[in-house]
Amino acid sequence: MEQDEQRAARVLAYLGRLQDELCRTFGESMGGSFLRDEWQRPAGAGKLQGGGITAVQEGGAVMERAGVALSDVRGSQLPPAATARNPQLAGRGFRAMGVSVVMHPRNPHAPTSHMNVRFFSAGDVWWFGGGFDLTPYIPYEDDIVAWHRAARAACDAVSPSIYPLARRHCDEYFFLKHRGEARGIGGIFYDDVNEQSPDLPLTWEQGFALMQQVGRGYHDALLGIIGRRRDAPFTQRERAYQLYRRGRYVEFNLVFDRGTLFGLQSGGRTEAILVSMPPLASWSYASPDAQADARLLPYLTTLRGTDWLAGQEARRPAQDR
Amino acid sequence: MEQDEQRAARVLAYLGRLQDELCRTFGESMGGSFLRDEWQRPAGAGKLQGGGITAVQEGGAVMERAGVALSDVRGSQLPPAATARNPQLAGRGFRAMGVSVVMHPRNPHAPTSHMNVRFFSAGDVWWFGGGFDLTPYIPYEDDIVAWHRAARAACDAVSPSIYPLARRHCDEYFFLKHRGEARGIGGIFYDDVNEQSPDLPLTWEQGFALMQQVGRGYHDALLGIIGRRRDAPFTQRERAYQLYRRGRYVEFNLVFDRGTLFGLQSGGRTEAILVSMPPLASWSYASPDAQADARLLPYLTTLRGTDWLAGQEARRPAQDR
Repeated sequence: MEQDEQRAARVLAYLGRLQDELCRTFGESMGGSFLRDEWQRPAGAGKLQGGGITAVQEGGAVMERAGVALSDVRGSQLPPAATARNPQLAGRGFRAMGVSVVMHPRNPHAPTSHMNVRFFSAGDVWWFGGGFDLTPYIPYEDDIVAWHRAARAACDAVSPSIYPLARRHCDEYFFLKHRGEARGIGGIFYDDVNEQSPDLPLTWEQGFALMQQVGRGYHDALLGIIGRRRDAPFTQRERAYQLYRRGRYVEFNLVFDRGTLFGLQSGGRTEAILVSMPPLASWSYASPDAQADARLLPYLTTLRGTDWLAGQEARRPAQDR
Repeated sequence: MEQDEQRAARVLAYLGRLQDELCRTFGESMGGSFLRDEWQRPAGAGKLQGGGITAVQEGGAVMERAGVALSDVRGSQLPPAATARNPQLAGRGFRAMGVSVVMHPRNPHAPTSHMNVRFFSAGDVWWFGGGFDLTPYIPYEDDIVAWHRAARAACDAVSPSIYPLARRHCDEYFFLKHRGEARGIGGIFYDDVNEQSPDLPLTWEQGFALMQQVGRGYHDALLGIIGRRRDAPFTQRERAYQLYRRGRYVEFNLVFDRGTLFGLQSGGRTEAILVSMPPLASWSYASPDAQADARLLPYLTTLRGTDWLAGQEARRPAQDR
């Protein structure tokens, strides 16, 4: 019991530092500012109790909307969405803490990005989950390579067996079935990781180290990409295409995303859960820009699964290998 | 068998006339035009076969986006979302035809509206469903009363037992649990209606008559409301509030709407299913307009279920009666 609490305290202290650093780098340092909404909720019928800090930036110079949400909640009944791989845990009391980040830059040359790290415990069982993925509107291979390099480095720092699995899991997870398109160019994603995980067994210390690597890797990789794209000139046509593609981001989050469903099912704070939504999104019957589609869609379909870290000639879709 | 086909042919002919009339009234007559996308899909693995005409207006003078979709499809396996009340039918071959309408006017004083009428058959079993509901951004009691008057008249023309049930079903169905808000001010909604329906048994001729009443009632009521609001002067602040509230419309359709889920689950045409989405929608952490909220939200919460057709003094929330 004492060890459980020490571990939770270490994770929570790290999550607070991660949130602060992300808000500094992508807020104050970039001509924006995050509003910090600190909340506490007492125990109540069917609701989570706990607290958190939802940091939101809206209308920043670089970030049109960004959310960095820290939460530490307890519930009396683990909802089904939290335990897809461990259905025998549904109904148990639990504690969940994590940081969730979605950043929507204003410039259509800069990609939307997402990162999440989380730690769950339910009695004597604990597990980690997390990852990051990138959703470009106008794709740049430099950015894609940098992103996957950061993803592999974060994983390899803990164990060389993590990246291939987490990369594949990300490709599988961030996919819009009804569109036949990936959400973006991927990254890494892992879930339900503990010492008993059949495909990725990690000790608690390894799981915590991976959480920190993921946080660091996301911060550094995104800073590089945003730095390269934030001041790129763009046209109204490119802006319109970005708003149209952001509609897909909305579709993924509301139809498929497990974190969003977990939050809404467990009676979480809706505004905090939906900080992932873009500031402005559009829908139209046909794409407003066939040329932009021709540039972007291969990355979300035929090039999906490409090993961007292999040499140029070895880059071909995973399904062909 | 011959009777089945005659019935389907009568319904389909009506649906075609309904689509044409809606497109004329809310398109050509209002300085807009519907693009008619006629499609046919042959039988294929796991997909629906059939055809339809998706009529879409984008960027019209009055309608910023509107979809009037007719479809007539057959499938080899009825998906679960189609048979929530008749689970024993899941897996059967079926035929489904209907017209679905969502209209998003440009002017924030004019409400978004939705209408759907549909006819299903699966072997020897048939059923009707449909209804209409209204989603104002700036509420006007004149419009609300006119809407419910049209709803009651459509139902009463077939049987006086329909309106109270269909009104209640609509209030229950168009509700965003995670927001604690109704989607709008209601209307009517019914489903799985046939001679065996426990709460609303109708003969086939009654079901078909109700379909036509619903189509007529929607057309006429909406025409009156749009006529009163289409040229109202509006501010940028009102426009911003409309975009923000349209975000709720997106949330309802992607998280809760049975028709959307049915379409996406059954491998329907995604663009046609998502013509219900608004042309432009926004999200923000806090409402951009507390005054507008104070005007609108009572209609979606405490005034929900109010009998707008009773005398002024009798208007109080249904839960108080």
